[in-house]
Amino acid sequence: MHNDTLALAEKLIACRSLTPFDNGCQDILIERLKKIGFAIEKIRCGEVDNLWARRGMNAPLLCFAGHTDVVPTGPLAKWESDPFIPEVRSDRLYGRGAADMKGSLAAFVTAIETFVAKYPDHGGSIALLITSDEEGVAIDGTVRVVETLKARNEPIDYCIVGEPTCVDMLGDTIKNGRRGSLSGTLIVKGIQGHIAYPHLAKNPIHLAAPAIAEMAQTEWDKGNEYFPPTTWQISNINGGTGAANVIPGEVTILFNFRFSTASTVESLQARVHEILDRHHLDYDVRWELSGKPYLTPRGDLVEAISRAIKTVTGIEPQLSTSGGTSDGRFIADICPQVVEMGPRNATIHKINEYVEVKDLEQLPEIYRLTMEHLLPI
Amino acid sequence: MHNDTLALAEKLIACRSLTPFDNGCQDILIERLKKIGFAIEKIRCGEVDNLWARRGMNAPLLCFAGHTDVVPTGPLAKWESDPFIPEVRSDRLYGRGAADMKGSLAAFVTAIETFVAKYPDHGGSIALLITSDEEGVAIDGTVRVVETLKARNEPIDYCIVGEPTCVDMLGDTIKNGRRGSLSGTLIVKGIQGHIAYPHLAKNPIHLAAPAIAEMAQTEWDKGNEYFPPTTWQISNINGGTGAANVIPGEVTILFNFRFSTASTVESLQARVHEILDRHHLDYDVRWELSGKPYLTPRGDLVEAISRAIKTVTGIEPQLSTSGGTSDGRFIADICPQVVEMGPRNATIHKINEYVEVKDLEQLPEIYRLTMEHLLPI
Repeated sequence: MHNDTLALAEKLIACRSLTPFDNGCQDILIERLKKIGFAIEKIRCGEVDNLWARRGMNAPLLCFAGHTDVVPTGPLAKWESDPFIPEVRSDRLYGRGAADMKGSLAAFVTAIETFVAKYPDHGGSIALLITSDEEGVAIDGTVRVVETLKARNEPIDYCIVGEPTCVDMLGDTIKNGRRGSLSGTLIVKGIQGHIAYPHLAKNPIHLAAPAIAEMAQTEWDKGNEYFPPTTWQISNINGGTGAANVIPGEVTILFNFRFSTASTVESLQARVHEILDRHHLDYDVRWELSGKPYLTPRGDLVEAISRAIKTVTGIEPQLSTSGGTSDGRFIADICPQVVEMGPRNATIHKINEYVEVKDLEQLPEIYRLTMEHLLPI
Repeated sequence: MHNDTLALAEKLIACRSLTPFDNGCQDILIERLKKIGFAIEKIRCGEVDNLWARRGMNAPLLCFAGHTDVVPTGPLAKWESDPFIPEVRSDRLYGRGAADMKGSLAAFVTAIETFVAKYPDHGGSIALLITSDEEGVAIDGTVRVVETLKARNEPIDYCIVGEPTCVDMLGDTIKNGRRGSLSGTLIVKGIQGHIAYPHLAKNPIHLAAPAIAEMAQTEWDKGNEYFPPTTWQISNINGGTGAANVIPGEVTILFNFRFSTASTVESLQARVHEILDRHHLDYDVRWELSGKPYLTPRGDLVEAISRAIKTVTGIEPQLSTSGGTSDGRFIADICPQVVEMGPRNATIHKINEYVEVKDLEQLPEIYRLTMEHLLPI
């Protein structure tokens, strides 16, 4: 099986699938999945290729999710081998997308093939949800497939996203949630005037400073068992006419919450407004929710994949909710248990991205054992 | 005498002396001053014409100071008459520079002519210090003449700057000083990083906010008998990469003090550094002193011109140190008593600038009486 996973990962890497273009990857997967009885559904949106493939009609449904698109290579001259010509050196498979996440896609397929060969009449269902728009704007990708499934009332019971989650060695980290991301554009208003006559003006920078200082010091929540405390950070502040003798009429502040499930969008918004109001500021805030948080507490899925990891690698995986947002947040909308588990992420998005050949041997075993734990066999 | 002042003001307005160009104004003055025994010294620097004219070799020296340059006209279509063709309408003389300050220049000359005719052998000396670079960058103007006088040890005892100081009626305001202007460019440094990992970064905007809040609340001094308290204002603040997911590495803050003689440049700088240091900030400040403050307390000059105003207009003038900087700050360097007194400033730098014809009758009387009070006659 493991030689097969390596070979499939190499075939996928050879497709130049720069986000948001799939460039033939999904057809390679489809060819394999059709042979083992998957129903194939292509959901194309704009330039984005999405795939929904399912085997079985019954619950529970275990879904493997991922993406075929990759980030740009960066300077080609710095790569030791062509990023789109897979090459094994020192027991590592090099190529753009090797770790993020064509290795995981290959492992999905060979794991399922092995499982189906062993249990052709397994209970429950298996699915793959694959997009080519995870690394880009992520508008026409996973979120569209989820909308389709939601519209026809086709829920997912368990979902494993193959994102590269491991830090030092395969199996050390499962992501069982992600923080949410809530941004605000705050405009604090004053009254413009000549700097020599401040009594005729109101300086919005001076007025905003104590509120900023307070928000920077605020404990928004304490986090919880799974999440670190919510953080609030200003990314940009701009005020002033450019002239050195003018008090500006307003100052614009862009800020961002990375928030845990210990807070809600509404609770954070209310607290920001409370602070701004208490400082008697004249202001506008335009809010933008770029990602809701999701959380999969310990339960069937976490237990199953943790047990599989322990069996295959001997490691007790850590649960983590750190990092940016992922497509897991969309799937969580129709699936109560979503985790992310894939190879080491040390080289993702970098020059000379690689995945350990040994990880391509162990990863399908982990996925296959997880299926055995979760599906009636 | 008053018809003569009006006529001379008209001749000066007819010279299109857009800053920093004198365009013949000083030659008109020189022609008149030569006839009454003034020694003429032209001090040209770059494009700027400066004039130092003196009658008498003895102390005390009373100097009249001013400028021939004017600010641009703005949209010509909005002027009711050509700004460089003087026109009297409803007892007002219209034209660019009528109030700022060709009316005062004309009043200097006719006042001196009348005084010299009456006291040809007056004690002390009379001088005129005239530049064509007051409205512009003021680098090659009054400051150069002052350098020249200082270099040859030729001090001034009293100086009357003819700037338009009056608000509601001629004589209501004497400026006996001006605040200083001290600017700083403050860069507060942090550590740039991804907004999802704030523990790996240091947000300079968050770090600076409490220090800004404190400085905005600080009482720098209480002012004094002549000056309002020193003010501190931020004119510009800029931090951020433009990206919404990056904590910036630094934030840049431009601020400005308008400061009274109750503080010094050094005391203000020291207090800013103390606050920034106490907040443990990593920062740079680049300081720029754009104008030292000056003050002429009540004394011979203030008394003499106040008495002259009272005699001519019946008004008790107010002392004021408000407004921006003026050339008075340069002259104060070699002259212990400098005041500014001229016509109403309601229309200066505006469309349809004018001076009251009646003010052109009274202003020479005020200047002449002041000479009589200060010079041995």
